[in-house]
Amino acid sequence: MDKTLQAAGSQISVLKFGGTSVKNLGRITHVCEIIDQARRSGPVVVVVSAMGDTTDYLVKLANQCSAHPDSRELDLLLSTGEQISITLVAMILRRMGIRARSFTAYQVGIFTETVHTKARIVDVKTETLCRALEENDVVVVAGFQGVTEGGEITTLGRGGSDTTAVALAAALGAERCDIYTDVDGIHTADPNLIPQAQLLQRVSYEEVVEMARLGAQIIHPRAVELARQYKVVLQVRNTFKPSHEGTRIDEGEDMEIYRSVSGVAIDKDQSSVAIMGVPDRPGIAAKIMQAMADKSIVIDMIMQAFHPTFGLNNITFTVHESELEQTTTILEQMKEELGAKEVLADPDIAKVSLIGAGMVHQPGIAAKLFAVLAGAGINIKMIATSEMRLTCVLSKADAQRAVQEIHRAFELDTVSAPK
Amino acid sequence: MDKTLQAAGSQISVLKFGGTSVKNLGRITHVCEIIDQARRSGPVVVVVSAMGDTTDYLVKLANQCSAHPDSRELDLLLSTGEQISITLVAMILRRMGIRARSFTAYQVGIFTETVHTKARIVDVKTETLCRALEENDVVVVAGFQGVTEGGEITTLGRGGSDTTAVALAAALGAERCDIYTDVDGIHTADPNLIPQAQLLQRVSYEEVVEMARLGAQIIHPRAVELARQYKVVLQVRNTFKPSHEGTRIDEGEDMEIYRSVSGVAIDKDQSSVAIMGVPDRPGIAAKIMQAMADKSIVIDMIMQAFHPTFGLNNITFTVHESELEQTTTILEQMKEELGAKEVLADPDIAKVSLIGAGMVHQPGIAAKLFAVLAGAGINIKMIATSEMRLTCVLSKADAQRAVQEIHRAFELDTVSAPK
Repeated sequence: MDKTLQAAGSQISVLKFGGTSVKNLGRITHVCEIIDQARRSGPVVVVVSAMGDTTDYLVKLANQCSAHPDSRELDLLLSTGEQISITLVAMILRRMGIRARSFTAYQVGIFTETVHTKARIVDVKTETLCRALEENDVVVVAGFQGVTEGGEITTLGRGGSDTTAVALAAALGAERCDIYTDVDGIHTADPNLIPQAQLLQRVSYEEVVEMARLGAQIIHPRAVELARQYKVVLQVRNTFKPSHEGTRIDEGEDMEIYRSVSGVAIDKDQSSVAIMGVPDRPGIAAKIMQAMADKSIVIDMIMQAFHPTFGLNNITFTVHESELEQTTTILEQMKEELGAKEVLADPDIAKVSLIGAGMVHQPGIAAKLFAVLAGAGINIKMIATSEMRLTCVLSKADAQRAVQEIHRAFELDTVSAPK
Repeated sequence: MDKTLQAAGSQISVLKFGGTSVKNLGRITHVCEIIDQARRSGPVVVVVSAMGDTTDYLVKLANQCSAHPDSRELDLLLSTGEQISITLVAMILRRMGIRARSFTAYQVGIFTETVHTKARIVDVKTETLCRALEENDVVVVAGFQGVTEGGEITTLGRGGSDTTAVALAAALGAERCDIYTDVDGIHTADPNLIPQAQLLQRVSYEEVVEMARLGAQIIHPRAVELARQYKVVLQVRNTFKPSHEGTRIDEGEDMEIYRSVSGVAIDKDQSSVAIMGVPDRPGIAAKIMQAMADKSIVIDMIMQAFHPTFGLNNITFTVHESELEQTTTILEQMKEELGAKEVLADPDIAKVSLIGAGMVHQPGIAAKLFAVLAGAGINIKMIATSEMRLTCVLSKADAQRAVQEIHRAFELDTVSAPK
């Protein structure tokens, strides 16, 4: 890390603004006011996404050119979205009399592996940024994009700008990274579904990753994992309520003392598929999973139940509903080879998950959860657990009521409100 | 230059398509068909501008951010226009089953001086392009943009994509560069004004530069100068009539044998300013020109007339009409310092020019020109001559009629039509 900056004792702030925060020039001006406030406390690095729906528009344009646009060309195309937004942010900052300079990933040196549309960052150079920061410039960096050793432009896939921000914070030795978005922070449940949902003032990396994976995605799990690895504290804040603190995401070592569960997540976009009557031979599940992996179908929950009487297994798993048809087709083709009796698809499922870092120490929580659902007359189709979550698969029609009941029963309606 | 390509005896073609040629995906598809034809004769390098009005749109966006957007940021913003169009061209070529890859200026290594919005090219690397050409890729390069040694993105200013194409042709040792545009080629006069205007099959670099400077701009004079320097033959062709040959621009050594004049140009966007009664002291004209240069006002024709009786000079020059007001303001402020009597502005002028490489050997042409105008009752306000042009400043109302009379009198209506 740069000595001058350290000697000055100034802690670098990294601020990330998503697409809705820079949707138009009015919003960018508002973002620049937040940046202006931040720079009064020290050097500022800003990471921005493409404006509003720009990326979707560019993807549509590519799809009009070709049903399967080349991924290298697609990345070069998509990277223009962030290149536009960074220059506009820099221009408006300069109009406000603030020294500012924008940089693409290639100009900074955000190196990725040579994989297009979902590259992982392998190295972040800091020389260019530190030089600009020393000259008192606010630096504005294009999120979502990277460059390979060979000079090819890559993109980081979904959640890419969050990942860029955390990677820069880690490389620059910033202790904190503010993720500005269009919601107040992370809640105990989706406030659109559960009006009583409370804003969490503080939550652990692990809990956020679980919540995101289970359908409550405010920040991409990949960025959270990276933040955990480099001990970068994340602060999720609402661009439109800049005085609110939002939610702090950190290691949360002492959290379980005051809270065993931190939220309820819901994911209605799932379907389940069951292969019934598979002979109990080793390697059958592996064969099925490999067939799914070959088609890049992501499998979530997997359950295997054995019928001792017949010596047959039923294997059930969940997939995204958009992949249900393809999944059943593949399984129907494999049915004979596997010696299975039947393939059953169930599009009517929803996943409801209770998440909490303290859950692992309190076995009574699972019992309480099932009792709550039983008491409400809600049938559970599947159950899965991990160290910090309990997931029940229910009928879609029951999902919202289930979340409400769980939210109340676990006293999430009364989590302490933010300052 | 690359040995494999030379050994194969294949001559590289450089094809440049302007903004109107790639205005939308339909037109880009049409352009790709032209490229497909060209690649059957050997390796192809394509240079494209931004789609349609993209650059104007981006400039407007920048002006909404700031009355004076920073030129570095502006260049980074504008360069996205070509970055978008090259990827779409490559995607559509690939959909057609043609191997293709797009490159930004930074990826190719089109190095410029560190001047924004109007940088000049200082070096063009060919390694990346030659490697792609060896792999039988059609390479699609972003026009108008460059990169500095320090990795800053620059743009080349007006006519930049033409300049990129010629610079690549020169660097790659291509003998010819096809400039595809939305007109048939270069005519003896503007066909919109003079229906009898004839397409020139062949014209010299010098004549095209003069025509362009005098208002008949099909290809940027800067690109033509570069082509002359590196002996790159230019072929100006109509994208929408790909079977037409258009106009060949080359050294034209033997042209004057069959043609002394090649065209008439008209420029109605000029105004003239006169400073009357300036004492005849050395350095006065220089002082005035310096004041104009300080404000980046481009001065075209300059005339100084001396009145021996009073020992006073009248200095007259032409400027673009959009700069007339600023020019007169500056001169009014300088009037006292210069000891001048009066500043007169004349917005009602038009420049009509007769151009021809063979003119220098035929002094009778000037006499004939003035006789034609006198015969038509058209008053001449100013006259300027150079080796291959004769320019008369007239009243705007007379301009079109003057061009018609000159066009007919010099038998330009009957220049041999193209094959």
